[in-house]
Amino acid sequence: MKHFLAVAAAAAALVPLAAHAQFAKPEDAIKYRQSAFSLMGNHFSRIGAMVNGRVPFDAKVAADNATLLVALSRLPGGAFPTGSESGLNTRARAEIWRDNAKFAAAYERMVGEMAKLPAAAAAEGTLKTQFGAVAGACKACHDDFRRD
Amino acid sequence: MKHFLAVAAAAAALVPLAAHAQFAKPEDAIKYRQSAFSLMGNHFSRIGAMVNGRVPFDAKVAADNATLLVALSRLPGGAFPTGSESGLNTRARAEIWRDNAKFAAAYERMVGEMAKLPAAAAAEGTLKTQFGAVAGACKACHDDFRRD
Repeated sequence: MKHFLAVAAAAAALVPLAAHAQFAKPEDAIKYRQSAFSLMGNHFSRIGAMVNGRVPFDAKVAADNATLLVALSRLPGGAFPTGSESGLNTRARAEIWRDNAKFAAAYERMVGEMAKLPAAAAAEGTLKTQFGAVAGACKACHDDFRRD
Repeated sequence: MKHFLAVAAAAAALVPLAAHAQFAKPEDAIKYRQSAFSLMGNHFSRIGAMVNGRVPFDAKVAADNATLLVALSRLPGGAFPTGSESGLNTRARAEIWRDNAKFAAAYERMVGEMAKLPAAAAAEGTLKTQFGAVAGACKACHDDFRRD
């Protein structure tokens, strides 16, 4: 476990990096956050395949994916600068900038649940429970702040 | 330093995860590798800004970015399955599949140079040297395997 907890701790140190992200133009921020969310979706679905029984549970694979997800989860938060409300094919809702405190809270809820995923990956039962908690946090934020 | 070396070691463990990446359709693989390369470009340019004197050298910021880059650098390698030669706006050249061993070597050179970046971030001189080594590995692979 020590191995993955060390990584989670390191990832926590990356928060300021994301918060101070700078982008040359709004489209760069949109592309950046979409890239991060896209990778998150891919690796989260690999864990989902185990949780839903489509592939056998493998604690090592689950933990590797979860560890990567912790680092990725902290990236997009700094990529919603004013001016990036529209452009490319962004699905971001205006509510992100209109009620930024509420968005930040919803985002941080996801980051917080994701941070618990590597430890939960040790056993199938705990992984399933924590996978659900992360998925719930993702959905809550999408419902309020992402267009269909 | 221990902190970042621990993360680099953890990232090394992620290689098999990338190598066994599975994608429902070719476009998913293209989107995945483009997302990883896009994030890599962004975080590498943050270090580049220090190396080129556009922002002051900050060992902590450089190391955080380098640590993230080590993890990201290992992701796209598993996302070039047969069938993903074309689609979306991929710039991948057919040579990737035609001479896959050469591509794998060029890719692994980049991964190997990137793995040295977190330790090099401790001082401005070593960071500059290793930044150049990584950039050279990126360019060599792009020259042979990416369309302009």
